[in-house]
Amino acid sequence: MKFGGTSMAGTERIRRVANIVRKQQAAGHQVAVVVSAMAGETDRLVNFCREANPLYDPAEYDVVVASGEQVTSGLLALTLQAMGCRARSWLGWQLPIHTAEAHAKARIMDIDAETLIEAMEGGEVAVIPGFQGLSAEGRITTLGRGGSDTSAVAVAAALKADRCDIYTDVDGVYTTDPRIVARARKLKYVTYEEMLELASVGAKVLQTRSVSLAMKEGVRVQVLSSFIDEDAPPADDLPGTMIVSDDEMEGLQMESQLVTGIAHDKNEARVVLTRVPDKPGAVSHIFSPLAEAAINVDMIIQNVGRDKGETDVTFTVPQADLARAQAMLEDKREAIGFNRIITDSKVAKISVVGVGMRSHAGVAATMFRALADRGINVQAISTSEIKISVLIDEDETELAVRVLHTAYGLDADEPAE
Amino acid sequence: MKFGGTSMAGTERIRRVANIVRKQQAAGHQVAVVVSAMAGETDRLVNFCREANPLYDPAEYDVVVASGEQVTSGLLALTLQAMGCRARSWLGWQLPIHTAEAHAKARIMDIDAETLIEAMEGGEVAVIPGFQGLSAEGRITTLGRGGSDTSAVAVAAALKADRCDIYTDVDGVYTTDPRIVARARKLKYVTYEEMLELASVGAKVLQTRSVSLAMKEGVRVQVLSSFIDEDAPPADDLPGTMIVSDDEMEGLQMESQLVTGIAHDKNEARVVLTRVPDKPGAVSHIFSPLAEAAINVDMIIQNVGRDKGETDVTFTVPQADLARAQAMLEDKREAIGFNRIITDSKVAKISVVGVGMRSHAGVAATMFRALADRGINVQAISTSEIKISVLIDEDETELAVRVLHTAYGLDADEPAE
Repeated sequence: MKFGGTSMAGTERIRRVANIVRKQQAAGHQVAVVVSAMAGETDRLVNFCREANPLYDPAEYDVVVASGEQVTSGLLALTLQAMGCRARSWLGWQLPIHTAEAHAKARIMDIDAETLIEAMEGGEVAVIPGFQGLSAEGRITTLGRGGSDTSAVAVAAALKADRCDIYTDVDGVYTTDPRIVARARKLKYVTYEEMLELASVGAKVLQTRSVSLAMKEGVRVQVLSSFIDEDAPPADDLPGTMIVSDDEMEGLQMESQLVTGIAHDKNEARVVLTRVPDKPGAVSHIFSPLAEAAINVDMIIQNVGRDKGETDVTFTVPQADLARAQAMLEDKREAIGFNRIITDSKVAKISVVGVGMRSHAGVAATMFRALADRGINVQAISTSEIKISVLIDEDETELAVRVLHTAYGLDADEPAE
Repeated sequence: MKFGGTSMAGTERIRRVANIVRKQQAAGHQVAVVVSAMAGETDRLVNFCREANPLYDPAEYDVVVASGEQVTSGLLALTLQAMGCRARSWLGWQLPIHTAEAHAKARIMDIDAETLIEAMEGGEVAVIPGFQGLSAEGRITTLGRGGSDTSAVAVAAALKADRCDIYTDVDGVYTTDPRIVARARKLKYVTYEEMLELASVGAKVLQTRSVSLAMKEGVRVQVLSSFIDEDAPPADDLPGTMIVSDDEMEGLQMESQLVTGIAHDKNEARVVLTRVPDKPGAVSHIFSPLAEAAINVDMIIQNVGRDKGETDVTFTVPQADLARAQAMLEDKREAIGFNRIITDSKVAKISVVGVGMRSHAGVAATMFRALADRGINVQAISTSEIKISVLIDEDETELAVRVLHTAYGLDADEPAE
């Protein structure tokens, strides 16, 4: 079980969490719990580090920020004990959770789970601070912001857990954002790959790394709300969304669905370089420097140029990197040989995602027809095996999501409450 | 060097601390720094534990409260690095600082200082969180409130340091409380035993345990202020008070002083049991139960009783324990056989302390004469090899301290600024 910062913010909320944990144990499960720091605490600690040293040493940064999860893990163990439930905390260096060297963005290599399994078999709840591990040099590491989801999946994998329940402030994964589409439906199941595509296009429920790890390790992850009724029965009837493998999904023999969900992302920006020489190597002059600067280019389109031997190149980058990308391209103007840079951050990416696409044609055709019917102009397209994304005017985001949700037959019979 | 919570309260103050540390290193010293948590932080964490579980498990309490020093040690290392000074933090479990099992009041057994010495010889400042250690079972321990002074002395002993500088919010040890006597003098030197006697009678500058440990390990401890001028030269001219052994004190060949200092303590309460049977074993009926309840009885006087075969017994206990002591004595009324309990918490203990007493007579006589001359009534007396204490009316505390300070020739020529 994993609980985020909002669920751990203060002793009263920790008591709620302990109650949920206790019920799972009472229902006969052996339980390990991974916790985040109290909401706001990691920001406070990061600010201290920035004030102390703007160019901070990531090793010392890790010493400071890892303390937030240390506190909540001790407090949850104490709270469980107060309820008569045996529990102890296991810090990252105690298990240990071995990580690769990179401080502040470490990767979990391996978890020594033997002692943990022994304690759990003895009836003790194991409480583990998320986000932290131990380097080969014996120093504290942290996994990067949001790393507690990844800790939870890694612990579940090490324990060969039946399930990894991730409690968040939403009660599951929806066919689309319920704030946009009242008839959005909560998905009972979603595959790892669908979840990755949904996460990478803005439907952030879990940290992407945690989903990749779950897929690699075959950990069944359930997303559910920590703000459920405390007196409700334990979560064995799977009230959230279960993230499973393709095989398990097939075994469920549910009615095959072409599209699982519709995601949107307003954090992209469009860049157009006009009159780029249409010759071999020209495009690599554009994208190599961006890649070196770790600017993630998503959609790329090469328009037919107005003049012979020239072409317009359109692509998208994260809005946060737009200024940096623009400066970098201006620097390389001579090498690339373009005429103008046109940028537009008022764009949105709309994606339809579903493993059903693999075996069904016509998904793209439905999308373009539905958008065209409402006069929504498509500025760019990109596709993967289980996803089709289009770039549109940001103002048309909500309209496009609603139109597509209906077009693919995702609307629930009743609007959500 | 050790810095307390007030000196570490916030990044701006930590910068001041880093500046003081950097200068010591620049002056050619190898430096290890022991730090407390930010002022108020340990209280915050202790409150969390109490809220989570009033009967908290000390092992989990230690996990939570040790985080305060972890944060400040990381921040001081970062701040030193920002000044171009190589530094790293060494947590209690990393060195490790081995402690005996008792969580929340652990005792330091041993410190593996080899790696530390190596790092310091390589020119790195070692930053060590105070108050924490590692149990034989591999869990975090803490030393009890104020334990960072003890950590500092233990680290100094393990490093065979030339000196252990403890930076506090006072600039040294005075002949008496300068708020009472304007002509109090700062002592350049004081012996361990004098320091212990002064601390135990209310002149708290250092944690008593840290002084005992320094005496046992022969660590030269200097008490000085962390609020010195940042631009002042490094503290090699010993601006504070140096705590040394009897031998070193003798070697200093200073003019022999009968009395080193005058301490006062308003936290005692007087208890009188009237008409206790004057027979063997009667007194043990009084003091055995108090000892078992860990109530510290200080002064004891047996007055001659008014009736034959009976006596009045007077003693003092800490004010905080008075109610508990009284209830316990009422419980044992039959076994003890007293008539009445009279208590008075409006008393003060005044002590004159000095190693000079060992070789000089007349110290007590001077005390009684000086007090009698001003009409101050002595209610009880206790003595040790280097201390004489009297119990008086609390209202006469300041008068008594001033009178004795003058009587023993301790007044400075000029009042302090």
